[in-house]
Amino acid sequence: MSVTYAQGFSAAGVAAGISAVPGKKDLALVVNNGPLDAVAGVFTTNRFCAAPVRWSSAIVADGHAKAVVLNSGGANACTGQAGYEQSRATAKAAAQLLGAEADDIAVCSTGLIGELLPLQHILAGVQEAYGALAAGEQAGSDASVAIMTTDTTPKTFTVQGSGYRVGGMVKGSGMIAPQLATMLCVITTDAVVSSGQLQAALGAAADRTFNRIDVDGCMSTNDTLLIMASGASKVEPDPDEFNNLIAQACASLARQIIGDAEGSSHDVRITVSGAKSEDEALVCARAIAASNLLKCAIYGNDPNWGRVVSSLGTVPLERAAYDADQVDVTINAIKVCDGGKPGRDRSEVDMTPREVHIDVDLHAGGEQATVWTDDLTNEYVHINADYES
Amino acid sequence: MSVTYAQGFSAAGVAAGISAVPGKKDLALVVNNGPLDAVAGVFTTNRFCAAPVRWSSAIVADGHAKAVVLNSGGANACTGQAGYEQSRATAKAAAQLLGAEADDIAVCSTGLIGELLPLQHILAGVQEAYGALAAGEQAGSDASVAIMTTDTTPKTFTVQGSGYRVGGMVKGSGMIAPQLATMLCVITTDAVVSSGQLQAALGAAADRTFNRIDVDGCMSTNDTLLIMASGASKVEPDPDEFNNLIAQACASLARQIIGDAEGSSHDVRITVSGAKSEDEALVCARAIAASNLLKCAIYGNDPNWGRVVSSLGTVPLERAAYDADQVDVTINAIKVCDGGKPGRDRSEVDMTPREVHIDVDLHAGGEQATVWTDDLTNEYVHINADYES
Repeated sequence: MSVTYAQGFSAAGVAAGISAVPGKKDLALVVNNGPLDAVAGVFTTNRFCAAPVRWSSAIVADGHAKAVVLNSGGANACTGQAGYEQSRATAKAAAQLLGAEADDIAVCSTGLIGELLPLQHILAGVQEAYGALAAGEQAGSDASVAIMTTDTTPKTFTVQGSGYRVGGMVKGSGMIAPQLATMLCVITTDAVVSSGQLQAALGAAADRTFNRIDVDGCMSTNDTLLIMASGASKVEPDPDEFNNLIAQACASLARQIIGDAEGSSHDVRITVSGAKSEDEALVCARAIAASNLLKCAIYGNDPNWGRVVSSLGTVPLERAAYDADQVDVTINAIKVCDGGKPGRDRSEVDMTPREVHIDVDLHAGGEQATVWTDDLTNEYVHINADYES
Repeated sequence: MSVTYAQGFSAAGVAAGISAVPGKKDLALVVNNGPLDAVAGVFTTNRFCAAPVRWSSAIVADGHAKAVVLNSGGANACTGQAGYEQSRATAKAAAQLLGAEADDIAVCSTGLIGELLPLQHILAGVQEAYGALAAGEQAGSDASVAIMTTDTTPKTFTVQGSGYRVGGMVKGSGMIAPQLATMLCVITTDAVVSSGQLQAALGAAADRTFNRIDVDGCMSTNDTLLIMASGASKVEPDPDEFNNLIAQACASLARQIIGDAEGSSHDVRITVSGAKSEDEALVCARAIAASNLLKCAIYGNDPNWGRVVSSLGTVPLERAAYDADQVDVTINAIKVCDGGKPGRDRSEVDMTPREVHIDVDLHAGGEQATVWTDDLTNEYVHINADYES
């Protein structure tokens, strides 16, 4: 169902000939039929942010949007003013069909950086998608397929609130790093909420979900996370419940990215506890998640805790207080490092499950944080050595 | 020749049974026969620094050392007080043979983290190495072989100054990141220099060489860079010439590490110019060198400049001033990105040479910096998925 699960939304996903793969669905249109047109967004902080990011972040700033056009097959990043005009033209084409203004239409793109889009295909695709707009399950599914690039499976989410609904879709499997690890994500709700409420819910949720997954340490130029509210349920939600459901949506979609990370054979949950603050725990967890050596070891089913602590040891003292002689490392429930020294034998660790849990206790305080990453595999290298060109 | 090229040094490399590979040379001894015993060192900043690092950094602090014992086959890191006692026992054994004090003997270890060393093998190896000590070419070569782990070739350097000599050896091919990317390195000279001169020369040289290479972004727990002066030439060198030769030694040895990086098929030189300061250039160059996606693309002979700029774009404005719309990227002499937009066609770039040159011009100032890295290959993953256990 994805984005069409919430009332008041229609969607489509069509094959517009943008992707190099013949017949692949590569353009999605998601329309908010109201009565509200509230929107909020979170965008990449990359200084080479793509044209559609510049366009969309500008047009959602007023809290209103009626639709979003998303394409795979090209990122429209590092394409200068010409690229920006392509995003604008895409928005304009959708606006004319929908009887809206161009600045009510968000645009998202993903694919190779440094090439203009085949604009005629995009514009024809918008027209075709407009003709295919529907509110049912298939339409939401088509949209979630159309935004896939190296994803092997569509990623969607639905949840029922007290009288209202939340749905969503995301694409992303590589170039995923904290700040902001979503690639493209659209969440919809038929709750009666303001754009301010949406922004607050989304920002808080993203901070603990999309900003805590790391596939390869590489930040995208195109990351865009949008949330749209139609108000069609006529229900004003309990704020805590609503925030919680948006957090659930982001957590599920982020977890699905990790589960479909390029070439991965293990999903790795890294929890650092016993920190003086959540921020210190997070800095440590991210340092561990960034270790290529650890990620290779996990691929090899090797519970190599030396690579956990050697990564942890790169965090400067001023960023995280701990004593190396106090640190415990537990891998899949076996404490292999006890107070900075060897604990139970690493041969006791069962590394066969897809999920690997690395728990680090700093013994320096009461706070903790969790990040998710994947292992580093031959297949990841293969995918990214051969991507495009 | 390596460390025995300079007069006043003898060395040995023996198979002590530390390595899991039968018959592999795995213990080296380098002895400074004087008349001077000046020493200086640079060590990893990893907070989980290994026992031999704690030992050696303490004993070289007084500027005097008569020998260094180096072993492969085990890092003696995260081994607590017991590990520290092993380093001390190793030093003591060499000291007794050499008629010196334990605190005149540095110790270096490399290999798996989190295991104690087989001390009896180490001590027997020290005895055997002492018996094999020699000043000739073979002895220096044996020592350089004994410190290899995943290295496929020994890495050595010699240069003649005005009446004095400098030699050196290094091991390292993975877990190589700036601050400090050497693994184990010993440089020797027969010049008449003080430990203060050695420290100044070594620190400056390391900062622009070992601290500017990055194989996999992973900092070791054991990195140790030692320089010893025997004074046997009786020549007091011109300070500028001497500093320059030490810089040459470090540059050559660092470059050899890049050339032998685990599984690599390309050596990648990244130069960022047009920066406001050398530090800003360096921050940018390191961000680019850290990109797994770029490194995979280079393995695939893909001049994917989008992955250069998307990495560059992660550097916060306060760390490096530049305008994304001004940035040029040139790969192997083809300017593929011109002012943040596509330049010459990427198909013009010849990616077949082993050396790949990525030149980024920020157009924001007059300073520059260069770092070296490697591509990320299936073979790197294979080596590090299967290393030990």
